[in-house]
Amino acid sequence: MNNDAFLAACRLAIGEAHVLTNNDDKAAYLTDQRQRYTGEAIAVVKPANTKEVAKLVQLCAQHNIPIVPQGGNTGLVLGSVPDQSGKAIVLSLKRLNRIRAVDPVNHTITAEAGCILQHVQEAAANAGRLLPLSLAAEGSCTIGGNLSTNAGGTAVLRYGNTRELCLGLEVVTAQGEILHGLRGLRKDNTGYDLRDLFIGAEGTLGIITAAVLKIFPQPKAQLTALAALQTPADALRLLTLAQSHCGATLTGFELMSDLCLQLVAKHFPQLQFPFNQRHPQYVLLELSDNESAEHAGSLLESVIGAALEQGICQDAVLASSSIQSRALWQLRESISSAQAKEGKNIKHDISLPISRIAEFIADTDALLQENFPGCRNVTFGHLGDGNLHYNVSPPLNIPAEQFIERQAEINRVVHDNVHRMNGSISAEHGLGALKREEILRYKSPVEIALMKTIKQALDPLNLMNPGKVI
Amino acid sequence: MNNDAFLAACRLAIGEAHVLTNNDDKAAYLTDQRQRYTGEAIAVVKPANTKEVAKLVQLCAQHNIPIVPQGGNTGLVLGSVPDQSGKAIVLSLKRLNRIRAVDPVNHTITAEAGCILQHVQEAAANAGRLLPLSLAAEGSCTIGGNLSTNAGGTAVLRYGNTRELCLGLEVVTAQGEILHGLRGLRKDNTGYDLRDLFIGAEGTLGIITAAVLKIFPQPKAQLTALAALQTPADALRLLTLAQSHCGATLTGFELMSDLCLQLVAKHFPQLQFPFNQRHPQYVLLELSDNESAEHAGSLLESVIGAALEQGICQDAVLASSSIQSRALWQLRESISSAQAKEGKNIKHDISLPISRIAEFIADTDALLQENFPGCRNVTFGHLGDGNLHYNVSPPLNIPAEQFIERQAEINRVVHDNVHRMNGSISAEHGLGALKREEILRYKSPVEIALMKTIKQALDPLNLMNPGKVI
Repeated sequence: MNNDAFLAACRLAIGEAHVLTNNDDKAAYLTDQRQRYTGEAIAVVKPANTKEVAKLVQLCAQHNIPIVPQGGNTGLVLGSVPDQSGKAIVLSLKRLNRIRAVDPVNHTITAEAGCILQHVQEAAANAGRLLPLSLAAEGSCTIGGNLSTNAGGTAVLRYGNTRELCLGLEVVTAQGEILHGLRGLRKDNTGYDLRDLFIGAEGTLGIITAAVLKIFPQPKAQLTALAALQTPADALRLLTLAQSHCGATLTGFELMSDLCLQLVAKHFPQLQFPFNQRHPQYVLLELSDNESAEHAGSLLESVIGAALEQGICQDAVLASSSIQSRALWQLRESISSAQAKEGKNIKHDISLPISRIAEFIADTDALLQENFPGCRNVTFGHLGDGNLHYNVSPPLNIPAEQFIERQAEINRVVHDNVHRMNGSISAEHGLGALKREEILRYKSPVEIALMKTIKQALDPLNLMNPGKVI
Repeated sequence: MNNDAFLAACRLAIGEAHVLTNNDDKAAYLTDQRQRYTGEAIAVVKPANTKEVAKLVQLCAQHNIPIVPQGGNTGLVLGSVPDQSGKAIVLSLKRLNRIRAVDPVNHTITAEAGCILQHVQEAAANAGRLLPLSLAAEGSCTIGGNLSTNAGGTAVLRYGNTRELCLGLEVVTAQGEILHGLRGLRKDNTGYDLRDLFIGAEGTLGIITAAVLKIFPQPKAQLTALAALQTPADALRLLTLAQSHCGATLTGFELMSDLCLQLVAKHFPQLQFPFNQRHPQYVLLELSDNESAEHAGSLLESVIGAALEQGICQDAVLASSSIQSRALWQLRESISSAQAKEGKNIKHDISLPISRIAEFIADTDALLQENFPGCRNVTFGHLGDGNLHYNVSPPLNIPAEQFIERQAEINRVVHDNVHRMNGSISAEHGLGALKREEILRYKSPVEIALMKTIKQALDPLNLMNPGKVI
């Protein structure tokens, strides 16, 4: 296999400096975020604009070279790194990083795929608007990656996933043609929904190069409370109560078990635990209010008041400042790090019908105790979206490595139970290469066949991120 | 062509009583809602459940019989009636009319395709929840049709189109297989978005047989105001102001020109005009409040107060009861009938980036006056969604029939201008058979080719609602 002609054509198309073939230059693009896997690639190519992306895809089609599109390379399911065959190129979108337009009246922002999420948030804020998409990697992930994985994050309860935030796309097809679909319309019923087909496809059907995203009026105030409860079932009662009182003002609803906050206390002793005693469960509520901090405060008080009165929660603290709000969020956001400091563990990114979450936790906890006595469930997540990070730490008396060896068995117990209750084994991370085999167990043959039909129709040469998703 | 064997197999599959071949029995299924077109069909078949739908589709595939799926047959673009070849069957979903589940904690309702929209609204209301999808035909249209046309309606500003209200689908594919996708999940990133491919496809890719829809807490109060303004540009300023003050509490924002309300006054003199003098434009605002009528009232007063103060609007009335709210809505809802009573006219269901609407109206009004002097623009619509019913009535001195003959020329002027401003020529009605040719002028060859590729891949025999959409 001689790739010289192909590489020469790439250099001609986008300039020598943007075709990286040196191992040192390529290294950062070949290993995934969690450093679990390193692939190989002929080259890393870095086009400057959509036309250059199209040209490169045409060259790949001519030379039968697989393409791994890559944004910030912050994915968690090995979707943005190449395999070890060394036959593919990595096509980095990083240089497509212009904000093309902000329209505060239409409430839209048009950004290229390589824009860092945080930069797009800032551009919206500069126009007095909110881009609600927000997640841990926002300082390095890109909009193209967010769209390709249909990223979730902390504001899904109110604003939806990335899919719901997107009104239009520009895409380079597997044939290297440009689909100009950057429409900023709330209503458009003129044919098949190509936009949503490319969103969440993890680069396996084409390459997203730009998008029109919804933006919103900036809320006047954000306010947070932490409620202490007995059970996940009570947390569900609190959710229904808060939704009925607050409607769309409720923008966050996060569940944490006591073990989560015990680990935070152990590994981040500087963070203050806000209650006088421990409780089995906690819920972090956040309101985003278009009127005023006073209004948000009285609304939050009325919800918590009703919950205390009805015996749904036992205690609660209301943040009276944004500093206090931050402190409450910090407890929630420190759980992952605290669990990591505690040692290796097994993670699940699952979702369920919200009404079945209490049953799921009780049932799966019991099954795991039966099969893996002493294992410690560190369960937390976006309860308002039905999305749990249902993580499992080793029993205290068993070495982590020994426990981790049983990951496949534990996944089986958890995922089978998720499936039995009509849930999803990947709520917000996608399939990538990591869950590509696992999903075959849970999707029906009809659904898998439809996915394959679409893949075959849009990418007949199977050059777009092969080995991912399907 | 002898269809006896096919019809016998259909009768065996779903029972003799449900295979209609008699002309009288078939008649109601062959003519469109506006009585503009009557097609022909071998038979109208009425399966009772999803399995029977699948069986019928298999029989059609075996016998090469085209299928026109039909719900309430209330569509406006000739999408649900057969052509005049007489080769197709109409497959009515009307007997699939069970509400399969209501889950108030998950905030979902599962309904079969043939359920009348109003019945689904009622089932949600009985569980203390709101199904926000609402449109003029709700007493006879069906959920399957709403999904297949991605229906809009009066609450899109807050809740989105039907697409945004759907979490999962059950579909019979063109091969007669059942896709079990009735998931009620807020987050699920496990492969291609098949759901959104079938939504809005107008039955050309498969037959939707059931859906999981989002429902919401019932608002405690709904309140309406009518504002009088000078220009569409002022209406846009009012929209931005109201969105910033009210956030998601703003659920309706409808624009009407003075000519619209003049026609209503002429043809419905019993309806009261609420101002002392005429104004060039009016906006109907609606708030849906999760707290109380008092809260909604003070919020609406603050918006209208600010608008009066800033000179955005000249006058306003706030409904102080639901009867008064109804009366204001009646003005808006009577425009179509008033225009029909005035005589024949030319309708356009268009959408634009919201920020370009004032420019569009000024520019297109001027173009039409130049080319069709004296024509009367009856412009109204869901301004908050960028969706205008940009209708044109004949000049007073020209017979309607003579004016209507120039419909194609007028469409050309309007649609070309819509396209130039990045809008859509079908905001909420779909393409059907009516706009199938027109769209070829406005979509790029790349987009049309992708649509054809998908159609060919999922329905290679071209039996699913042929001649519609693509």
